[in-house]
Amino acid sequence: MYTEMFAQMKKQLGQLDKWLGTAGEYAKAKSFDPNVFVGLRLAPDQFPLARQVQICCDSAKLAALFLTGKPEEPKSDTEQTLEELQARVRSIIALLEGISPQDLDGAATRVVSQPRWKGEWMTGADYFVQHAVPNFYFHLTTAYAILRHNGVSVGKRDFLGAQTKRPPAN
Amino acid sequence: MYTEMFAQMKKQLGQLDKWLGTAGEYAKAKSFDPNVFVGLRLAPDQFPLARQVQICCDSAKLAALFLTGKPEEPKSDTEQTLEELQARVRSIIALLEGISPQDLDGAATRVVSQPRWKGEWMTGADYFVQHAVPNFYFHLTTAYAILRHNGVSVGKRDFLGAQTKRPPAN
Repeated sequence: MYTEMFAQMKKQLGQLDKWLGTAGEYAKAKSFDPNVFVGLRLAPDQFPLARQVQICCDSAKLAALFLTGKPEEPKSDTEQTLEELQARVRSIIALLEGISPQDLDGAATRVVSQPRWKGEWMTGADYFVQHAVPNFYFHLTTAYAILRHNGVSVGKRDFLGAQTKRPPAN
Repeated sequence: MYTEMFAQMKKQLGQLDKWLGTAGEYAKAKSFDPNVFVGLRLAPDQFPLARQVQICCDSAKLAALFLTGKPEEPKSDTEQTLEELQARVRSIIALLEGISPQDLDGAATRVVSQPRWKGEWMTGADYFVQHAVPNFYFHLTTAYAILRHNGVSVGKRDFLGAQTKRPPAN
């Protein structure tokens, strides 16, 4: 199921790219600076939109690298505009497009760890199911919620994107 | 991975149960009616907390029934208090506890459809990855966001819950 789940993450990032575009159009129509959105948050002690998008991107990226055994890439969180956030999202879509089903062979049993875990580790399966997927959707939905709360016209269909429905059997 | 993903949904519903409890304690400490939370929303044209919790529950329940080939159960959305919402959440946890790995044999290739799809259908795998999981996390995170936005002290650790970290190898 890893291949399908990463394809879904890629689709969801494509939707996020669209919501950010819709936010920019909304700002333009209402004549305010679209980059105001970048600093908006739902609570004073919660991360703003920029950080939500960055962590959403990192969740997908780290899952892809950890589960395929590729080295972690250096990153910087410097985005200050909607367009820069869109570029970040698109860079992760491109990264996910480079992952083949073969790359994911053995994903479930890989040893996943991070320096701050002080030697503790998770199996690839546990990391993916218990951390990567919930964390990805948490930050994706929070980014959506910040936009939705602030007037951007996005709905559930924009969240889910297209689904693979099959025609009726005759 | 279905067994692990449903176990994770069960864990996430347990976390949701706790957030609702924390919301009730917060209301008590601030001397307001805890059931005010039930009607709060992030945007005037978005569903309030009660409906977010109900749909989150339904997403998990329908996925479990569709993917195990069990008949859909009648439901009613009548909850008006935090405690009633907690009872709803716990009923879904109980339902998920009744699903065995054997029940999920062949989940990926089941035919999933609903009356409003007019004969169209999805494979169990597509339904789970493209609809059930994103929809579940969407409503779970939106419920969390409504509470967080309104002052309830919940954080990322409360969202994710405990994770299966393994001890360092010696």
